[in-house]
This record gives sequence, C-alpha cells and structure tokens, in this order.
Amino acid sequence: MPKTAGIVLIGNEILSGKIADANAAYLCRELRQLGVDVRRISVIPDEVEPIAREVAAQSPDHDVVFTSGGVGPTHDDVTIEGVARAMGVRVVRHPRLVAALQSHYHDRLNDAHLKMAETPEGAELVGGEPLRFPTILMRNVYILPGVPEIFRQKFEAIRERFRGAPIHLRNVFVSIGEGTLAEHLNGVLADFPVLLLGSYPEFSNPEYKVKVTLESRDPGYLEKALAELLRRLPAVAVVKVT
Amino acid sequence: MPKTAGIVLIGNEILSGKIADANAAYLCRELRQLGVDVRRISVIPDEVEPIAREVAAQSPDHDVVFTSGGVGPTHDDVTIEGVARAMGVRVVRHPRLVAALQSHYHDRLNDAHLKMAETPEGAELVGGEPLRFPTILMRNVYILPGVPEIFRQKFEAIRERFRGAPIHLRNVFVSIGEGTLAEHLNGVLADFPVLLLGSYPEFSNPEYKVKVTLESRDPGYLEKALAELLRRLPAVAVVKVT
Repeated sequence: MPKTAGIVLIGNEILSGKIADANAAYLCRELRQLGVDVRRISVIPDEVEPIAREVAAQSPDHDVVFTSGGVGPTHDDVTIEGVARAMGVRVVRHPRLVAALQSHYHDRLNDAHLKMAETPEGAELVGGEPLRFPTILMRNVYILPGVPEIFRQKFEAIRERFRGAPIHLRNVFVSIGEGTLAEHLNGVLADFPVLLLGSYPEFSNPEYKVKVTLESRDPGYLEKALAELLRRLPAVAVVKVT
Repeated sequence: MPKTAGIVLIGNEILSGKIADANAAYLCRELRQLGVDVRRISVIPDEVEPIAREVAAQSPDHDVVFTSGGVGPTHDDVTIEGVARAMGVRVVRHPRLVAALQSHYHDRLNDAHLKMAETPEGAELVGGEPLRFPTILMRNVYILPGVPEIFRQKFEAIRERFRGAPIHLRNVFVSIGEGTLAEHLNGVLADFPVLLLGSYPEFSNPEYKVKVTLESRDPGYLEKALAELLRRLPAVAVVKVT
C-alpha cells in the first residue's frame, strides 16, 4: 500500500504561464482521499536531462511517482526517454502498444505514431482495459499524459491500487489572529507531537480570521487533539468546527 | 537582468489537495511577460529540511528564486529558518521589522508577532514603501507570503527589478493531428534549432486539433521560423495564426 507519492509535471506550457496546472491539483485531492501523502510536486521543462534527474531523485524517495505530460508523437515529447535515462535502461517499442497503434491507424501508421509505442525497457502496462491505451508503469513510476481529460481517465482506471488507511481531517475556524493563536497551537503540539496541524489566515473573510486544520490517520488521536485545542481556545474565539 | 527563475511553493495545503496553487500560476505569467524564463516550480512541505535542500539546490541554478508561503507567526511557518539553513547563516530579528511590528501592535506585541521580524542573517529588505511590510531578499532568494492577495501586492512592488528582453510568441492552430504534424515540426527545428517550439493537442476542441507555439527573444528569427512552418504545412491545415 503506497503511503507517499511524488508528482513530476513535464510542462513548458505551465512554466511559461500559458496554462495553469490542473493535473497535480486533481491528483493531490484524489490521493489524499485514498490515504496517500503527496510529498513533492515538481514542474520541469520538456527536456530529457531535467526529467531524468527529477525522476531519479523522486523514485527512491517515494512509494510511487506520477509523471504528467511529454508523451506523444512530437519532438517535445521526451518523457519516456527521460524516465528510461533515470532508470539506466533503453527505450524500446512495446509489442502490445505497436499492435494497438496498427489496429487504429492501419496504412496511415508512421514513425511519429510509433513513438507512442515506446516505453523504457522493462516497463509494465497497467489499467489498460477498457481504455484503448494502458498506462506505462516503470518500476514505481506511473507515466501519465498531460491532457487533463485523458490524465483523469487513466488515473481512474488505476486508482484502487493506491487505496490505503485514510487521513482524517477536522477544521476549526477561529476569530482570533495567528499572533494570538500561535501559543495555543504550540500547546496542542506539545501534547500531540505527531498531529498534522495547519494554520491558514484569511485576511478578507468576514466570518473568521484563521482556519486551523488537524489531521491524523488515527481518528482517536485526532479527536483527542481536537478536544485539547477546543479546551485551550477562548470559547468566543471558536466560530465553527467541521 | 535576471534571465532564469525558480519557484519554491511551501505548502502542505497544496500537497494535501485542500487548495489549488494560485501564486506560481500568477508568477509564471508575470515573469514571462517581463522576459524571465521560469525553469522549475517545486511544491514542498512546511518543513525546515526540505525547504533548506530545495533552496540550496535552486539558488545556484537560477538568476532569481521566489519562495511562497511559510512566513508568519505559527509553528508551521518555517521558511525563514529553511532559507537560513540553505545559506548556512543564523536567523536574526531585523531591527526595521521589529520597529514596524512595535508601531503596529504596541502593548499587544508578543513573541509570536516578533517571529515575523525574523530574517536569515545578511538579508536585505526591498520594495518596502508604500507597503507596510517589505519583502525579504536573501542573496538571490525573494521570500514571499502564501496568501495570494499579499503575494501579488508584494510582487507588484518589486516587479520592475525583473524586466528584461521580452520573449515573443506566435501561435499556429492546425486541423491535423500530432502524428501528421510531427515531421513538419521536426523540419522547422532542423532549420531553427534554438526556436522554442511547443505542440499542444486539444482533443475536444471543434475548431482545431493542435495549437503550435513558436517563441524566441529575437523577433526576426521568430518570424522567419513562422514563415518556414507555414510554408511546410498544407494550406488547408492552418486554421488560424495569432
């Protein structure tokens, strides 16, 4: 059961501000629901060497890694080559992908199309049916496309692989500022050192000043930490608890 | 004149899918307009060691680096400490920031507030007026807050520091798929090797199949490359040029 994940977005179009990322935002939400802790997102250019370096750095650090983008038939689609270089293997044409392309393109099949049959040597194909194209898995690295609709379709087909113990969340909205809140949070953390505790000010919100998030995989621990925070806070400071 | 930039988002709330990034998306657009090439965005947790490692890796690789988030009075605000560790210096209280906090909080000033006067030793304060709080600059690292309104206000106050030679962009929208388009793009790149050429399929767009982007700091080179691409493409394949 994977506990930690890294995400590598291969995307000149994100770095140059032409589009905003949708895939990492989606994947972070989905993985969190499944109980997987995303530890890093990197956005890097469509270039072999940066991809190779990033994948080589992330793969040993996380249980699973997802790449998004840079797969397709054009010159700027170099993710397969980057992942292969990260793993120290060659790029090969996968027979099952070649067959799928042949049955789709028939006589029109050209070298550019066949680039889409390439995988790092030793890669598996997963989640292939009922989708026409399966996802390439190289060791712990899932290679997904950049187009958001297809990214989501492919992830949906493999999502149950990642389901683990959920991370439980409670929110406390308070009417006091972070400067006053800080000592109460520090007090809670002294008693609950492994609690995931976040503090998010909202300067233009008329209802509350700070949203405090408490998270844990252990629901009993979480409820005890929540009770301790509520005991410490002045009652008038608590706007709502969800 | 900075040519390259890196962005470090310090944000458990992004990694856990609670919010989508707004600051990197904004900064990429702004920097591109100013002529700065963003080469990397990293999203990492609110933890000292990952921040220190990322800043230490990015600072020598880019002309400028921007951090977003992790500044404030609570336990999870550890960006200053992370940047200081990356640079091998101590965290100190900056007299000008202490004075600003004193004049704002008067008697209510506490240790949590004073955390907001901390900087890595040797940091400068830039873009301070007319905003109450200036931006902390440590060597080539600009330390910005995570709250989007304040992030933008602070960046606006320093944006002219980053203006350089603009990167010019032309778009060609085509009605043929990437599999057929690829050889034409490869042909253009053979003649224009330093052209920045992107190819972005849009599967659900009724108007065109692929958007091709051509970019260069040299407008003459760009126009010649565009002419060459249009010469190579079948005329019926070109939907529009912008």
